[in-house]
Amino acid sequence: MSEAVEHTIRMSLGETIAFLNREFPQMQAGGRHYHLEAVGPLSARMRLDHHERHLRPGGTVSGPAMMALADYALYAAILANLGPVALAVTTNLNFNFLRRPGAGGLVAECRLLKLGRRLAVGEVPITAPGSADMVCHATGTYALPPQ
Amino acid sequence: MSEAVEHTIRMSLGETIAFLNREFPQMQAGGRHYHLEAVGPLSARMRLDHHERHLRPGGTVSGPAMMALADYALYAAILANLGPVALAVTTNLNFNFLRRPGAGGLVAECRLLKLGRRLAVGEVPITAPGSADMVCHATGTYALPPQ
Amino acid sequence: MSEAVEHTIRMSLGETIAFLNREFPQMQAGGRHYHLEAVGPLSARMRLDHHERHLRPGGTVSGPAMMALADYALYAAILANLGPVALAVTTNLNFNFLRRPGAGGLVAECRLLKLGRRLAVGEVPITAPGSADMVCHATGTYALPPQ
Amino acid sequence: MSEAVEHTIRMSLGETIAFLNREFPQMQAGGRHYHLEAVGPLSARMRLDHHERHLRPGGTVSGPAMMALADYALYAAILANLGPVALAVTTNLNFNFLRRPGAGGLVAECRLLKLGRRLAVGEVPITAPGSADMVCHATGTYALPPQ
Repeated sequence: MSEAVEHTIRMSLGETIAFLNREFPQMQAGGRHYHLEAVGPLSARMRLDHHERHLRPGGTVSGPAMMALADYALYAAILANLGPVALAVTTNLNFNFLRRPGAGGLVAECRLLKLGRRLAVGEVPITAPGSADMVCHATGTYALPPQ
Repeated sequence: MSEAVEHTIRMSLGETIAFLNREFPQMQAGGRHYHLEAVGPLSARMRLDHHERHLRPGGTVSGPAMMALADYALYAAILANLGPVALAVTTNLNFNFLRRPGAGGLVAECRLLKLGRRLAVGEVPITAPGSADMVCHATGTYALPPQ
Repeated sequence: MSEAVEHTIRMSLGETIAFLNREFPQMQAGGRHYHLEAVGPLSARMRLDHHERHLRPGGTVSGPAMMALADYALYAAILANLGPVALAVTTNLNFNFLRRPGAGGLVAECRLLKLGRRLAVGEVPITAPGSADMVCHATGTYALPPQ
Repeated sequence: MSEAVEHTIRMSLGETIAFLNREFPQMQAGGRHYHLEAVGPLSARMRLDHHERHLRPGGTVSGPAMMALADYALYAAILANLGPVALAVTTNLNFNFLRRPGAGGLVAECRLLKLGRRLAVGEVPITAPGSADMVCHATGTYALPPQ
């Protein structure tokens, strides 16, 4: 049986959002644009609102805004699945930019591929809402503090 | 409608295997251990046989054997989907090693995330046969020659 | 003889800064924090000012601020070396986060490892000013438009 | 003062080679093609001999042979700098393939960017002997066992 089936979350969506708002206010610096929409066993979904601040010439969402979205989604998935005990530290992020996104919002569907004692690894496809074509695919590794 | 739905392969499984045997014999240097099992729209499945040559101390499959498996699977998926016209050149490969595999064979399920005019990008989860837990997750980018 | 020795820049530091200010104003959204300090054959140096907006709990510079710094530095190096003709598109970025930076500014020393007709690849060590220890190491690939 | 200046190796070149021969014989499966040439503070140099087995059509060294070279060089650098106590486990490898190498040997100059208690991170430029142009640039992360 796979880890995904066995695993259960330790914080609800509401608890994870409250924790992020309290401990991680920088995520919303400049306005409330990043929204955690769902958490589940080894998963989380984060949405980036359409906002002029994230745009590039031609009306496309900027690379740094997408990179932040992927990092936040991975962090939220780890938090919901490990509980509010400790800080995960990003050690590696890899991004493949696939298509220019349009000017609307974006959705990051994060899946944790591994949630070990010392490292968590996940992947994050980013799409426009309602589209199946990825605009970006990210993978990330996080060091977990000793429990 | 997504690219995956629209796309159709240009070479069958048998044609792709014959092309690889003819043009890419190094894949089977030291014995026939890498087997292309399936090709489809934007996808391919490659299997690595259990063989002592690919093992590490403790009976685990070596990192280089897994890296070769991912590269071959991506190359085969591009070939089947573009046709036998041209050589794709690997420009980037990223690997996250998630769990130590056991001593058996491994299966790489490749999915192309983008098949553009100039670049193809794909991801490759590698698992033990019959297991849902990945031992390795790879992403790769290939430069496509001008048509 | 290596490419680095042969290559000469096509835009001066002042010309590159003027181009970025005109064509890429989003880089300075929220204030003028990213400063191009030098361009050279296959190289560029970009500085991120200390600013509360880029900080995380504990006073460390945020991952997304460092990722943006690396992306901008690579883009500026390509621009100075190719000239103002065309837009490079980021296709891959990989980040290894090595140490927590302090609360001060950061310096990105970009070096282009390849400047081909179709792809440019570079690496970016990021350090605190005056320190030899990297806080982050990035590599990036950019697709170059047909000339 | 930087880590590189402070650090001293814990095994000499001869000791590291002897350890690799004893504990890691798979590196030389199919012949003695990978040669550790030097170890130093946070560094190691590994050479891949010219051999038909590593070639691809057109006489270029294969991607998997280069990937193995980078992984072995990083592993040797960690071993020489940590001592023979424990096994490092590869968690991430990223490769940018820059130019087609010719048919000769290749040299990997590994530098450790971080050697922490739990993680080691390094970069590996790969060149042809006597050339300044990289054919491949790799970065890798290794989990270190609790001491």
